[in-house]
Amino acid sequence: MTASSTIPTTRAVATAFDLTTGLTEDRASLKRPLSAMAGMYSDTAAFDAQVARDDVLSYEFYDFDVPSLETEVAYGTSITYPGKVGDEYFMTKGHFHTRLESAEIYFCLSGQGLMLMESPEGDVQVEEFRPGRSVYVPGRYAHRSVNTSSDEPLITFFAFPGDAGHDYGTIETKGFRKIVVERDGAPVLLDNPRWGN
Amino acid sequence: MTASSTIPTTRAVATAFDLTTGLTEDRASLKRPLSAMAGMYSDTAAFDAQVARDDVLSYEFYDFDVPSLETEVAYGTSITYPGKVGDEYFMTKGHFHTRLESAEIYFCLSGQGLMLMESPEGDVQVEEFRPGRSVYVPGRYAHRSVNTSSDEPLITFFAFPGDAGHDYGTIETKGFRKIVVERDGAPVLLDNPRWGN
Ligand SMILES: [Mn+2]
Ligand SMILES: [Mn+2]
Repeated sequence: MTASSTIPTTRAVATAFDLTTGLTEDRASLKRPLSAMAGMYSDTAAFDAQVARDDVLSYEFYDFDVPSLETEVAYGTSITYPGKVGDEYFMTKGHFHTRLESAEIYFCLSGQGLMLMESPEGDVQVEEFRPGRSVYVPGRYAHRSVNTSSDEPLITFFAFPGDAGHDYGTIETKGFRKIVVERDGAPVLLDNPRWGN
Repeated sequence: MTASSTIPTTRAVATAFDLTTGLTEDRASLKRPLSAMAGMYSDTAAFDAQVARDDVLSYEFYDFDVPSLETEVAYGTSITYPGKVGDEYFMTKGHFHTRLESAEIYFCLSGQGLMLMESPEGDVQVEEFRPGRSVYVPGRYAHRSVNTSSDEPLITFFAFPGDAGHDYGTIETKGFRKIVVERDGAPVLLDNPRWGN
């Protein structure tokens, strides 16, 4: 990720995304193999075994590196692949925005899943992703995409203010208060037994 | 359109859009029948005759009325229907943002068309809409969607800073410098003979 400039964009930019894969050939995606998620899944034994066996790509997304200005709009697609670590669904790392108040909009292009959201004070909100469904993430809420499908990638298009910035550290350190696991073939929300550690 | 508040959004909002129509039943769209476009098409005789014959819905879109704050993100879908006035394709009114520097991102969900953009100084930019294609509209550029298909609606999802605001007046008064018309079955850009009047 390169440092964003503060010079406003002056040229239009068109980018062709493949609606089936969520990917574009116009630039390189940022790839997160499962190994990049160390410490984020509950079942650490299952995590270690799975990474040793096959360190699959768990998600990827784009950073178009728009200028870091409140008048700009950062955007891209995010693709979370199907899979589980133990009974916990594949998910993105999740983050707060550095400018905490910055909101974000997601539009689900295909697949199914959940948007898991949490405020610094511990309020938890969850919304469902289905094709055609937009999910508005209010400012101050950390957000993580969770793929609850057994076979389809969860593909979203996202947009947020250019000066929002990303704070991954808080989640990397404390985690989310809730985890999303499969029970009898369906996703349920449980308290994260490892939260805060 | 109600006045936007300046109280930040604190609850997540999920909205189910139909990917075929671009519409949602969650709220009312803003509808623009052809008659709302008086003075905006080149061929005024063709316009008057068509409105008298059948004042069809030329486009509709959503305003989710997010708070007017730079940390918020306004969003929704826009549906421009296929059709022509004379040989000029159906289009949206188009606008500058009141906070002129505010950029916007469009993501084409279906259909085909053009994004016509113009700065106050007269620089013109054009990008193509195809399914899966995003078009980034830089700040300072007025923008208008043009549907160049003969039979499909042009459906886009858009997002822009919550405090951008809309200035429709400048375009209503002067128009865009270019018009998009059909020649031998394909869209071409021509100087707008009525520009500035
Ligand atoms: Mn974000
Ligand atoms: Mn706009």
